[in-house]
Amino acid sequence: MGYSDVDKLAINTIRLLAVDATFKSNSGHPGAPMGMAPVAHVLFNKILNYNPKNSAWLNRDRFVLSNGHACMLQYALLHLAGYKLSMDDLKAFRSIDSITPGHPEAHDTDGIEVTTGPLGQGFSNAVGLAIAQHHAAGEFNKPGFELINNYTYTFLGDGCMQEGVASEAASLAGHLQLGNLIAIYDDNHISIDGDINCAFTEDVALRFKSYGWHVEVVEDGDHDLQGIEDAIKKCQAVKDKPSMIKLRTTIGFGSLLQGTGGVHGAPLKTDDIKQVKSKFGFDPEQSFVVPQEVYDLYNKHGAEGAAKEQEWNQLLEKYGQQFKSEAADLKRRLTGDLPEGWEKNLPVYSPSDDAVASRKLSEIVLTKIHQAIPELVGGSADLTGSNLTRWKDAVDFQPPANGLGDWSGRYIRYGVREHAMGAIMNGLAAYGTVIPYGGTFLNFVSYAAGAVRLSSLSQIRAIWVATHDSIGLGEDGPTHQPIETLAHFRALPNCMVWRPADGNEVSAAYYVALTSKHTPSIIALSRQNLPQLENSTLANAIKGGYAVHEAEKADITLVSTGSEVGICVDAAKYLKEKHNLTARVVSIPCFEVFDAQSKEYRLSILPDGIPSLSVEVMSTMGWERYTHEQFGLNRFGASGAYKDVYKKFEFTPEGISKRAVATVDFWKDVPNIRSPINRAFQQLI
Amino acid sequence: MGYSDVDKLAINTIRLLAVDATFKSNSGHPGAPMGMAPVAHVLFNKILNYNPKNSAWLNRDRFVLSNGHACMLQYALLHLAGYKLSMDDLKAFRSIDSITPGHPEAHDTDGIEVTTGPLGQGFSNAVGLAIAQHHAAGEFNKPGFELINNYTYTFLGDGCMQEGVASEAASLAGHLQLGNLIAIYDDNHISIDGDINCAFTEDVALRFKSYGWHVEVVEDGDHDLQGIEDAIKKCQAVKDKPSMIKLRTTIGFGSLLQGTGGVHGAPLKTDDIKQVKSKFGFDPEQSFVVPQEVYDLYNKHGAEGAAKEQEWNQLLEKYGQQFKSEAADLKRRLTGDLPEGWEKNLPVYSPSDDAVASRKLSEIVLTKIHQAIPELVGGSADLTGSNLTRWKDAVDFQPPANGLGDWSGRYIRYGVREHAMGAIMNGLAAYGTVIPYGGTFLNFVSYAAGAVRLSSLSQIRAIWVATHDSIGLGEDGPTHQPIETLAHFRALPNCMVWRPADGNEVSAAYYVALTSKHTPSIIALSRQNLPQLENSTLANAIKGGYAVHEAEKADITLVSTGSEVGICVDAAKYLKEKHNLTARVVSIPCFEVFDAQSKEYRLSILPDGIPSLSVEVMSTMGWERYTHEQFGLNRFGASGAYKDVYKKFEFTPEGISKRAVATVDFWKDVPNIRSPINRAFQQLI
Repeated sequence: MGYSDVDKLAINTIRLLAVDATFKSNSGHPGAPMGMAPVAHVLFNKILNYNPKNSAWLNRDRFVLSNGHACMLQYALLHLAGYKLSMDDLKAFRSIDSITPGHPEAHDTDGIEVTTGPLGQGFSNAVGLAIAQHHAAGEFNKPGFELINNYTYTFLGDGCMQEGVASEAASLAGHLQLGNLIAIYDDNHISIDGDINCAFTEDVALRFKSYGWHVEVVEDGDHDLQGIEDAIKKCQAVKDKPSMIKLRTTIGFGSLLQGTGGVHGAPLKTDDIKQVKSKFGFDPEQSFVVPQEVYDLYNKHGAEGAAKEQEWNQLLEKYGQQFKSEAADLKRRLTGDLPEGWEKNLPVYSPSDDAVASRKLSEIVLTKIHQAIPELVGGSADLTGSNLTRWKDAVDFQPPANGLGDWSGRYIRYGVREHAMGAIMNGLAAYGTVIPYGGTFLNFVSYAAGAVRLSSLSQIRAIWVATHDSIGLGEDGPTHQPIETLAHFRALPNCMVWRPADGNEVSAAYYVALTSKHTPSIIALSRQNLPQLENSTLANAIKGGYAVHEAEKADITLVSTGSEVGICVDAAKYLKEKHNLTARVVSIPCFEVFDAQSKEYRLSILPDGIPSLSVEVMSTMGWERYTHEQFGLNRFGASGAYKDVYKKFEFTPEGISKRAVATVDFWKDVPNIRSPINRAFQQLI
Repeated sequence: MGYSDVDKLAINTIRLLAVDATFKSNSGHPGAPMGMAPVAHVLFNKILNYNPKNSAWLNRDRFVLSNGHACMLQYALLHLAGYKLSMDDLKAFRSIDSITPGHPEAHDTDGIEVTTGPLGQGFSNAVGLAIAQHHAAGEFNKPGFELINNYTYTFLGDGCMQEGVASEAASLAGHLQLGNLIAIYDDNHISIDGDINCAFTEDVALRFKSYGWHVEVVEDGDHDLQGIEDAIKKCQAVKDKPSMIKLRTTIGFGSLLQGTGGVHGAPLKTDDIKQVKSKFGFDPEQSFVVPQEVYDLYNKHGAEGAAKEQEWNQLLEKYGQQFKSEAADLKRRLTGDLPEGWEKNLPVYSPSDDAVASRKLSEIVLTKIHQAIPELVGGSADLTGSNLTRWKDAVDFQPPANGLGDWSGRYIRYGVREHAMGAIMNGLAAYGTVIPYGGTFLNFVSYAAGAVRLSSLSQIRAIWVATHDSIGLGEDGPTHQPIETLAHFRALPNCMVWRPADGNEVSAAYYVALTSKHTPSIIALSRQNLPQLENSTLANAIKGGYAVHEAEKADITLVSTGSEVGICVDAAKYLKEKHNLTARVVSIPCFEVFDAQSKEYRLSILPDGIPSLSVEVMSTMGWERYTHEQFGLNRFGASGAYKDVYKKFEFTPEGISKRAVATVDFWKDVPNIRSPINRAFQQLI
């Protein structure tokens, strides 16, 4: 093919767009875009299959900028390539309400696959995208119909390379033999603290080989365009391993400060900008310049991509004639809608049914719905038997070569890699053909906090099956008993935290989690058995809060979640018998969903005129929003049989009653008790 | 030296103690103790230097059980070795208030160095312990006085090996050439999901070589005691690299289920217990048996250890004669007390002083106190220039061989490894000669949530310098702007979260953080400049909350932290001018410390009779505990210049005033407004 001056021009154009935008915003990272412009140009202009006019084409190659701070590189490329990103958008870089924020955000900007910036996440998302691609190929491809065969490319720098989440994901990707995954490592020797010699001297290529990756090295990433292309093509040809290209580049190429930390995270100085423009043959007095031949070059590649999508659409049409139900299934999945009637499979319970641990109830849900929702793809971070995340006869997602499953398998063995699991789920969901869920202990969802945060920010439907949800796990003790975890994720915007109290609430949690296309969920589940409750129905529970036990002229409202709701019901009886007090009992399995109900409804559940007491065996933080008084655990738990632990901390009908009596007493002289639902003003949304 | 039948007997004794304790508690993990008993016996009886009668001996070898679920192994060893852990304690395994909880807890149990169980943490703690040892050696050893030369050993299993935090720590340990660190990897091929072939097929030995570690392999870890000892000694001899021994063992050795997942996390069945006891030559009807010759064997080793400590004490005494101030410094450090008068170095400010970013104020504190507190050892996860964590002329902690610093250096280049930094700080603090602090962006403390949790649980003085603490970081945007982070760590027991508003509050945060021996701190610091406030003094701020601006007959109390306190002061003026309302302004830089004040004091700050409004640019969760109404950000932020972001979300005098007016209006008809400080009952502590 060969490279000409126009390629060089395109590369320098990209570099200077990054220089101009960071200068104009007086903020941002010019260094990595200037260093990676050559490989980015080769990738976006010679390799990548995409149609800029339809960023939703399923079989497009995926690109993830894991070093998201280099986003001016990606914005410049999206602009040149013809996505919905104008020159004005580039000029608005890092300004309020622009589509070109400080780090790339998938839900805001056309052509951005996943939200990146927090280091290590994008690379791990790319592993998820590649898993989803292999999985979809395994499910949908047929002889003569290689419908799904896209590659996933990711750029990453030294920062991502050092993050543990990326190590976890890389190890799993090697195990899974993800041949269509190609990572390009910007080996520029510079991080914020200066030369990486001060902290990062491992042999990265050897490490990736130890994971089972194919490794290529390109020594001159600044100039050797053909070498870059050749390396990528070699990687494409390796079908049984993911590939990593170690690409030696010069950060801030062209700047007077090139090769130093000075060009990493601060705009170039005016003089430097002038000299680099002159050096590259651009007018030093002009900014935001794209020569027409550069647009032309990219338009040509974009047109080729559009033609490829056309071809593919024809293939899909033929496929649909031969494989009608598969094609219909695929098309439906891409809408994000679930199959009609799937919810009829959700189990329902009545109070006479047995007490069952909610982790077990979750297993029953998964068992009953997995056939109706073929896009449901689950897994666990090596706690399958504890999380109960695997339905009987599930096939593992594994490379066929290892004999333990196949590409169409719907159960992922994540290994003890919670953070990677979270980030991979984000990639799986972003691909479009899968709804991911993953299991671990609730306490260890915290290991994945960085990934959960990005699920929420980038509006991704991912579901955490978070078992062993409290001191109720018993003997494992304080190291494993969550105290702060629910408060943490309840405080995270756009994250649904469920703590269901019984079977119908578990069904409700799954119902809302699965039908909320733009919100992740954490479903906290018990190890111990829980009774089926009186007023618990699917219709009640999907409101996020309702009265489990209603009473006229109540003296107090007990408000609770999960395993404590049943104890509160017993406490209500105890209060009547021993103290002649009447208690209502309210379950709020999900704050976020309850908050979304009308004020009228919320006030009917938490009414004026009655004092209220929350009961939850963990941090009370956040409960002040719903109740007047709080009974919780603002300390660490204890190791012992779970009933002993509950007793130690007085989470018994007696212990709850003691506090209920104190609450009634404390509020008895207050006239017109106001429910905390009443607020002086609305929060910003 | 050679091994005899009594060694075999000791090994089987350890195995059976684990079998009996897990059976009695009907809970726990017999598999790893049974598999690792041989290496544990070799280590504890032939290698490790310790005095069981003084677990605080500074130069003892450190041992960390990173696979903490195998704690019956450690408890059995501590019992045999003669620590304060009786047979009754073993029998109380995993029962309430025992000193033998489900996972090892350092503050509860004599001889446990660090709290482990959450996978990957212990290994990373061990890296911290080894760093502290190399650092102390660099500081205190003198020609002829190799005062500090202990080894740090850690056991870890497949779980720890898969966790990203351990990968991060391993890479850094290799870079730092920590020759006195020896990790023993229990390569038993089994994790909870079964054979690790399903998820973990990387070449672990090669990976550690890529990090720069020395690697030994022992093929028969079940029987080859001499091979184990030889491997450890080879590792001891390698002085310029940390070492990893890949030890092939059989999980649950002796059980009918040996080598399978069935023996990992559940007690053995009765029949199996009988057969294994018979097979090992024990009475199948007896439990918790330790043959006298096994006690004798361990007593002998313990006595040797005690003698070694005696020798060392003599060495220290001689050292003290020659190096008086060094010896005094060392002894003082081990008490945990700071040098007398250190606090005189804390800077103080008056309202006329310049507005300064609190990250900069933090740098000033570190600059002024580092000479007075020689045990202060800092670092950053590759954000030194942003966190401002390095005083001028600081020496880096580096292996002398790389020419970038030396062992006595007090500044650690952690690389982009937040989680490992947190876990390493826990190890550093546990060693006894160092008070660690580490910098990153507040948002990325979440990456280290697992480690911060263990700091809190195990009562460790570690300090997070968490800059870029809000939307005030501006252009980097929502991916970097904390919303849920303060709520998360405020909900964590025994964790001080500071968000100082000005110079005196920054000094107060450091004062309390440094003098709280048993509590970690997170100090959230701004990127933007903050004015010096009216009533801000060290004496006020160390109470965790106080009135920055007092007013008679106030209509409202504005309650805030950090960068918003100054805006609230302006809002008070605006309220007076535009609405003729009188506002008090309260700063609560630290909930935890404020909560510890008397009720009388807290009510004087947040008094009855006046409605209150909190103002903080992040999740309002938790503020309901202190104020009647809350103005915050229960959504993600925005990318833009920080003033534009504040304006967008109305965190301006005008925006605050609008909500203050609504608050006053909403509460005007409530007689005897009750401060939220009043509670119906006390929380459990």
